[in-house]
Amino acid sequence: MKPTRIEHVGIAVKNLDEAIPFYEKLLQTKCYAVEEVAEQKVKTAFFTIGETKIELLESTDPEGPIGKFVEKKGEGVHHLAFAVDELSEESLAELASDDVRLIDKKPRRGAEGLRIAFLHPKSTHGVLTELCSE
Amino acid sequence: MKPTRIEHVGIAVKNLDEAIPFYEKLLQTKCYAVEEVAEQKVKTAFFTIGETKIELLESTDPEGPIGKFVEKKGEGVHHLAFAVDELSEESLAELASDDVRLIDKKPRRGAEGLRIAFLHPKSTHGVLTELCSE
Repeated sequence: MKPTRIEHVGIAVKNLDEAIPFYEKLLQTKCYAVEEVAEQKVKTAFFTIGETKIELLESTDPEGPIGKFVEKKGEGVHHLAFAVDELSEESLAELASDDVRLIDKKPRRGAEGLRIAFLHPKSTHGVLTELCSE
Repeated sequence: MKPTRIEHVGIAVKNLDEAIPFYEKLLQTKCYAVEEVAEQKVKTAFFTIGETKIELLESTDPEGPIGKFVEKKGEGVHHLAFAVDELSEESLAELASDDVRLIDKKPRRGAEGLRIAFLHPKSTHGVLTELCSE
């Protein structure tokens, strides 16, 4: 399982209606999709930048993961996602055997239909890390 | 001044000697440079991932910006850097006129010989943002 590029950088924001116009101006590109991920209690907004993306995340529930993050730490970078060539239960088990702490022991379905799994920031020097494959 | 790609993601760590081997394993690529930026009181380590980079930052002084960051927030993503086609005092003034708060009113010299300027996280939805050009 080799990471090939940064798939996206996830940024927690309080309000997409304010953050989208700001990032459209900064990145000089239009937000190309807004998607609600009910299971994660977030609304997401995507921007393309080179071969990667910025994903803005607004909580739809104060008890959801983004709601709690913003409450505790304020707005800011929430996670870093790498595209990998193949994400499987076996490749995650291999990471675990290298003492990487997994949040997801097997891949699940994320935004944009990707297969995703998260690694715990305790074992990645503080970075909530997502692995994604198509 | 148009951002063309993510130039790098800066991650504050406590100890490069521990963080470098971890990121070499995760990214399956060797750290290609370690550089001290005395002015910023940091030692940096770089990894290539696709068209972008991961920059690990270890403080060389508890009173420096990375030392204070790690003390307050722990290890984790410190800043997000975008490559832009042309970074100048004029293009920064244009951002300021759009109510973006600047840390650097004119470009200065950063790691790897780039011209850089930082935007304040208060006006970027919590993301310490760096703009870079060659």
